[in-house]
Amino acid sequence: MILCDIGNTSADLLYPDGSRTKILQNAFVPESVGRNVHYVSVNRDVDHERLRALGWINVAERIDWSRYYPTMGVDRIMVCEAVPNGVIVDAGSAITVDVMEEGRFCGGFIALGLRAVQEAYARLSPALDVSWNFEVDLDTIPKNTVDAVSAGYLAPLVHEIQRYGKPVYVTGGDARTMAGVIGGCIVDDRLVFAGMLKLIEQ
Amino acid sequence: MILCDIGNTSADLLYPDGSRTKILQNAFVPESVGRNVHYVSVNRDVDHERLRALGWINVAERIDWSRYYPTMGVDRIMVCEAVPNGVIVDAGSAITVDVMEEGRFCGGFIALGLRAVQEAYARLSPALDVSWNFEVDLDTIPKNTVDAVSAGYLAPLVHEIQRYGKPVYVTGGDARTMAGVIGGCIVDDRLVFAGMLKLIEQ
Repeated sequence: MILCDIGNTSADLLYPDGSRTKILQNAFVPESVGRNVHYVSVNRDVDHERLRALGWINVAERIDWSRYYPTMGVDRIMVCEAVPNGVIVDAGSAITVDVMEEGRFCGGFIALGLRAVQEAYARLSPALDVSWNFEVDLDTIPKNTVDAVSAGYLAPLVHEIQRYGKPVYVTGGDARTMAGVIGGCIVDDRLVFAGMLKLIEQ
Repeated sequence: MILCDIGNTSADLLYPDGSRTKILQNAFVPESVGRNVHYVSVNRDVDHERLRALGWINVAERIDWSRYYPTMGVDRIMVCEAVPNGVIVDAGSAITVDVMEEGRFCGGFIALGLRAVQEAYARLSPALDVSWNFEVDLDTIPKNTVDAVSAGYLAPLVHEIQRYGKPVYVTGGDARTMAGVIGGCIVDDRLVFAGMLKLIEQ
């Protein structure tokens, strides 16, 4: 069984032997991947009928929607399914932060991803277009521009994540960077797949 | 005496009778304002020699820089000068948050302004291009997209501001909106001018 997580920019594939490939959206040809594929997709352009005809199974159809909310992204739901208790930080183009307690979804919020924030600062003023300090001490009030900008985004976000007082799981493209800033958290770049497997096995 | 705060998009003028005018940068002609003017400017294009020739006085020259840091914006320093003890939130195109204690600058950070953040969300995904809920309860974890986006930015920022446990002063173009979200704070849209006056009178 192949697992496939279709995003807006790429499709992320996990093969039975544990290997993994990311294929950019414009190079992604479902027919060439195979038939025994379970997938989820947040990409609105995906032709689910075409995938069904190929024998692909949409894991989103197994979601118990009474536990989540209707417009919630299926990738967020997958990472929530994978973690019964904790705060899950999915650091991609957006950073989603979701709280799970005893297998129950308590809610979550959506922050801007690191790249989006850095670009927004640069757009505001050349003075704010600085290379970030990811080792900035979040418990000291900054006294220089680099730290004032880096901590200006990271300190509120990280303190909010820590506020829930739960174990923190970090996944997504910027997982390692964010984990370094948050500290004491679990990095798992396969949380989406773990959640998919849980729903498949139910 | 006229006070003038020159920004990147407009010049903000306070006249002796207490009236106030904002002039967009491309319509701002210093010669037409008058001679007895004290000003500060964060605008790098300002020709200080031309203003000096007009008799204008640059209040930035009275700053004791040993109390601040070299690349700190002079408008931020003015609002700090105006508040001996408290957290000062200047909500404009960026949101600066500075901490003052017994007249001493403790540091501060620079977050993105509301408009910059909303534009950045919209750029990420049409699904995140939502009209914000500024009455979102920041102590409840969101369970819908509008609240997940609104609180995704506002909750970390407001909790960080409240974390210092000091009185909060709010100024700038988005002062009223931010004050409504923060709650229990003092709105003062003349803090820059109050700081300028303090330095002039010294």
